[in-house]
Amino acid sequence: MAQYESSTQDRAVALRETLVSLSILGEEDLAALKGCLNRVAPEDVAVVLGDLDTEERLAIFKALPSVESRATVLEETDQQTRSDLLEGLSEEERSEVIGEMPVDDLVDALDELSEAEQERIIADLEEEEAEDVRELRQYEPDSAGGMMTSEFLAAPLGATSGEALATVQGNLTAEVISYVYVISGAGQLKGVVSIRDLLKARPETAVEEYMETDIVKVEVETDREEVAAVVDKYNLPVIPVVDSSGSIRGIVTFDDVLDAVQDEHSEDMLRMAGTTAIHPYYEPIYMGVAKRLPFLLVTLTGCIGVLLVQEHFKELITLPGLMLMVLPIVHLISGLSGNVAVVTSTVFVRGLATGEIYPGRISRAVWQELFIGLLIGLVIAVLVGLVLSLFFQEKYGSAIILVVVCGLFASIAWAAVIGALVPVFCRRFGIDPAIASGPFVTITVDISASFIFLLFVLLMLSDAAPATG
Amino acid sequence: MAQYESSTQDRAVALRETLVSLSILGEEDLAALKGCLNRVAPEDVAVVLGDLDTEERLAIFKALPSVESRATVLEETDQQTRSDLLEGLSEEERSEVIGEMPVDDLVDALDELSEAEQERIIADLEEEEAEDVRELRQYEPDSAGGMMTSEFLAAPLGATSGEALATVQGNLTAEVISYVYVISGAGQLKGVVSIRDLLKARPETAVEEYMETDIVKVEVETDREEVAAVVDKYNLPVIPVVDSSGSIRGIVTFDDVLDAVQDEHSEDMLRMAGTTAIHPYYEPIYMGVAKRLPFLLVTLTGCIGVLLVQEHFKELITLPGLMLMVLPIVHLISGLSGNVAVVTSTVFVRGLATGEIYPGRISRAVWQELFIGLLIGLVIAVLVGLVLSLFFQEKYGSAIILVVVCGLFASIAWAAVIGALVPVFCRRFGIDPAIASGPFVTITVDISASFIFLLFVLLMLSDAAPATG
Repeated sequence: MAQYESSTQDRAVALRETLVSLSILGEEDLAALKGCLNRVAPEDVAVVLGDLDTEERLAIFKALPSVESRATVLEETDQQTRSDLLEGLSEEERSEVIGEMPVDDLVDALDELSEAEQERIIADLEEEEAEDVRELRQYEPDSAGGMMTSEFLAAPLGATSGEALATVQGNLTAEVISYVYVISGAGQLKGVVSIRDLLKARPETAVEEYMETDIVKVEVETDREEVAAVVDKYNLPVIPVVDSSGSIRGIVTFDDVLDAVQDEHSEDMLRMAGTTAIHPYYEPIYMGVAKRLPFLLVTLTGCIGVLLVQEHFKELITLPGLMLMVLPIVHLISGLSGNVAVVTSTVFVRGLATGEIYPGRISRAVWQELFIGLLIGLVIAVLVGLVLSLFFQEKYGSAIILVVVCGLFASIAWAAVIGALVPVFCRRFGIDPAIASGPFVTITVDISASFIFLLFVLLMLSDAAPATG
Repeated sequence: MAQYESSTQDRAVALRETLVSLSILGEEDLAALKGCLNRVAPEDVAVVLGDLDTEERLAIFKALPSVESRATVLEETDQQTRSDLLEGLSEEERSEVIGEMPVDDLVDALDELSEAEQERIIADLEEEEAEDVRELRQYEPDSAGGMMTSEFLAAPLGATSGEALATVQGNLTAEVISYVYVISGAGQLKGVVSIRDLLKARPETAVEEYMETDIVKVEVETDREEVAAVVDKYNLPVIPVVDSSGSIRGIVTFDDVLDAVQDEHSEDMLRMAGTTAIHPYYEPIYMGVAKRLPFLLVTLTGCIGVLLVQEHFKELITLPGLMLMVLPIVHLISGLSGNVAVVTSTVFVRGLATGEIYPGRISRAVWQELFIGLLIGLVIAVLVGLVLSLFFQEKYGSAIILVVVCGLFASIAWAAVIGALVPVFCRRFGIDPAIASGPFVTITVDISASFIFLLFVLLMLSDAAPATG
C-alpha cells in the first residue's frame, strides 16, 4: 500500500465489479452480496453506487446490512445517486432510512425531493425532529445556519459539573460530546465547558466556575467560507452558531467545514476557468454546454474587441510590410501580458479570500505587484529584443524591434496593475473576485495590451519606414 | 455583525493600530499594552504581527500575558514573522516558548532556524520530547508523517475499560482525548476505543470486547492530499498513522488536515495561474519575479511557436488581402479554443483530485467533454459566421467566412479533447496534472488551433481568391 491513492481507486473499481456481479445473480446470491457489503465501509459503497444504473443501485442499497449503513450511504453519495435512490424506495423504507440521518444531512437530502414528498417525510418525523428540520430549512445552504446541526449538548446556568457530565453520558450518541454549552434561561449562550474539564472537576462544583466565556462563534447567516476561515484560524473541532439575539441555534462540526472547504475549492478552481462547480460526469451534456457558453461569449466579445482595435489601427498604418509584422507581435504581447494578469489576479483573489490581504495591506501589495510586473516586463522585453535582433534585424530593422521591446515592457507592467486592481475593485463593490478574475481580467488586458502596443507603433513609427515593404 | 467577514478585517486593522500605538509609548504604557493583549485572542495577535516591523513585533510578543499565548502566536503567525520573532528572542526565552508548542508545530518552527540553533533547542528538550522531534523531522512535511503528532493515547491489548479511561483522565492535556488506541506488545495498532464507549462501559470489561478493529488509517508516507481525502470521506476528527509494519507512529488531527486542504487550495489556484504557493506580501519582490518567470518563458516559447506556424503559412498564402484577414482571425480562434481547453482541463484536474473521476470513469468523461466541445464549437462557429456574414460579407466573401466557421468548429472541438487528455496522460505518467494544466494546455492548443485553422485555409482556399486583394 505504498501508493495509497491508486490503491483506493483500484479498490473502488474491484468493489464495483464484485457488487455488480453479485447483484445480478439473483436470490441465491443475495446472501453473498450481503456478506460482501457487511465487510465494506458504507462510504466506499456510496462512491461505487455513483457508477451504476438505477436497478443495480437499488438492489445493492437494499442489501445493505443495517439502516445506519443505508443512512451513511445516502449522506455520502453524490446528489444524483441520492435522489435516484430516494425515488426508488417505498414510502416506508424511505422514512425509516431518513429517520436515521443526522438532521443537517436530512435537510440536504430533502432538497432533492418533490414538495409533497418533503412534507410527507417531515410529517413522519417525531415532533421535536420535525421542528429542527423546519428551522434548518430556513437558512441558506451556504451559510452557517445551513451547515449546522441543531443537535448539541446544553446545560443551564447554575448546573454542577456532575449534572453536565450526566448530560454527556445520557447523550452518548450525539454527534459531538466534547463540549457542553451553558445557556441562560432565555437561551443565550453564556459559556462552554469541555469534556476534559468535566472529567477533571469535582462533581459538585458549578460549571460557571471553570466554563470558558470568551467563546468564538458565528451567526446563522455567516457565509460558509467565513465559517471555514474562523474554524481554521482558531483550530476548532466544533463552533457554536448563534442568532442575532445571541441565542445558540446549533453547532457546525469540522466535517461540514471540510466539505465546505472542498466545495469552495472546486468552485474557485472552476470559476477561474469560467465554469461552475459540479463535475460534468454527474450531469447531462447540455448542462455542461449551458454553463460554459456564457463565459465563452465574454471571451468572444473580447476577441471581437481586439479585432476592432486592430481594424482601427490597420487603416492608420499604411505600410503593408509593417502590418504583416505587427499582427503576430500583438498576438505574442497579449498572450504574455494575459498570463501576467491572470497570475497577479489569482494571487490577489486568493490573498483576499484567505485574509493574507486585507484593507490595511492592499496598497503595499498592489505596489509590490507593479514592481514585479515592471521587472518581469523588463526581462521578457530584453529577451524578445535579443531574439528579434539576432534573427529578424535585417528583415524588420531596429526601429520596429525597439517598438516591440518598449510595447512589450509597457503592456506587461500594465497587465500586472490591472490584475491586482480588478479583484480589489470587485471586492469594494461587492462582486465576488473569484468570478471576475477569470475571463474579465484576461479580456481587459487583451484589449488594452493590443492598444498600448499599437499606440507605441503609431507614436514611434509614424515617420519611420520598415526595412521591408 | 451582519457582515462577519469585513468586521473581522476591520477588527484586525483596529487591533493593529491599538497595539502599535501602545507598544511605542514606553514603560508606563506597558501595563496598558499587557491589559489589551490579555483581552485579545493570541490567534488575532498572530495575524496582526505580520504587518509590523521587527521592533514592534518583539515588543508586543514579549508583552503577551503567558508562555502559552506566546506559543500560540508562534504557531499561528506566518513563516516570515515566526523566524523573525525566534531570532529576536534570547536563548532562554526561546527554549521556554518552544517547549510549550505541540511537537508537530515545533518541528515546523525548527525548519526556519539555523542547524546549530536547531540542535541547541532539541538538546534543551526533555529526552522523550527530543526523541519525538527527531522522529517527526525524518518525514516529508507534505506527508502524513510530517502532519502527525506523536502525542496520542494508547492502551495495551488486555487492558480494561477502567484502565483505558484512567489513561484518558491522566492525560487530559493531550491534543486528542476522544480516542484510545489499543496496541499489541509489538506496537501494532489492533483497535480503537472512543471516549463514548469508555463512558458507557463497565470499568471491568476488557477493551477488546467493544474496540473497533476495522480502522481507517494512513501510512507515514501518504501524501497530505490523500490524507485529506480519506478524512473527508470518512468524516474523521482524527486518523491514526502507521508505519509499514503496522505500528502506530502518531495521529493526524482535523486542524492539520484543514491547514493542508487550505494550502493545497492555494497551491492549486496559483499553479493554475503559473506561480507558487505563498502570497508575495510575505516575500521579497525578486522572489515573485523568480517564481513566475519560468512559466512565462513557457508562454513565450509557445507564442514564438505560433509566430513560426504563421510565418510558415505566410509564404504559402501569397494573397496579401487574405493575410490581413487571417492573422486577426487566428487570434480569435486561439483565444476561444484556449478558453475551452482550460475549462476542460480544470474540470478534469479537479475531478481526478477529488476522486469524482477515476480509471473506471475516464473514458466516459473524455467522450462527454468531446461532445460538449463539439456542441460549444457549433454554437460559437454559427454565431461568428452570422456576425461575419452580416458585417464583413462584402469585404471578405463567403468562401473565407466558411473557412473561418469550419476552422473555429474544428479548433474548439480539438481543444476540448486536448484539455481532457493532457491531465489524464499526466496522471498516467506520474506528473502532477495541476501543474501541466495551466501553461502547457494553453500553449498546445494555441499552436494546434492556429495550425488547424491555417490548414483549413490552405485546403479550402488554395484556388479561391478573396474579395479584396
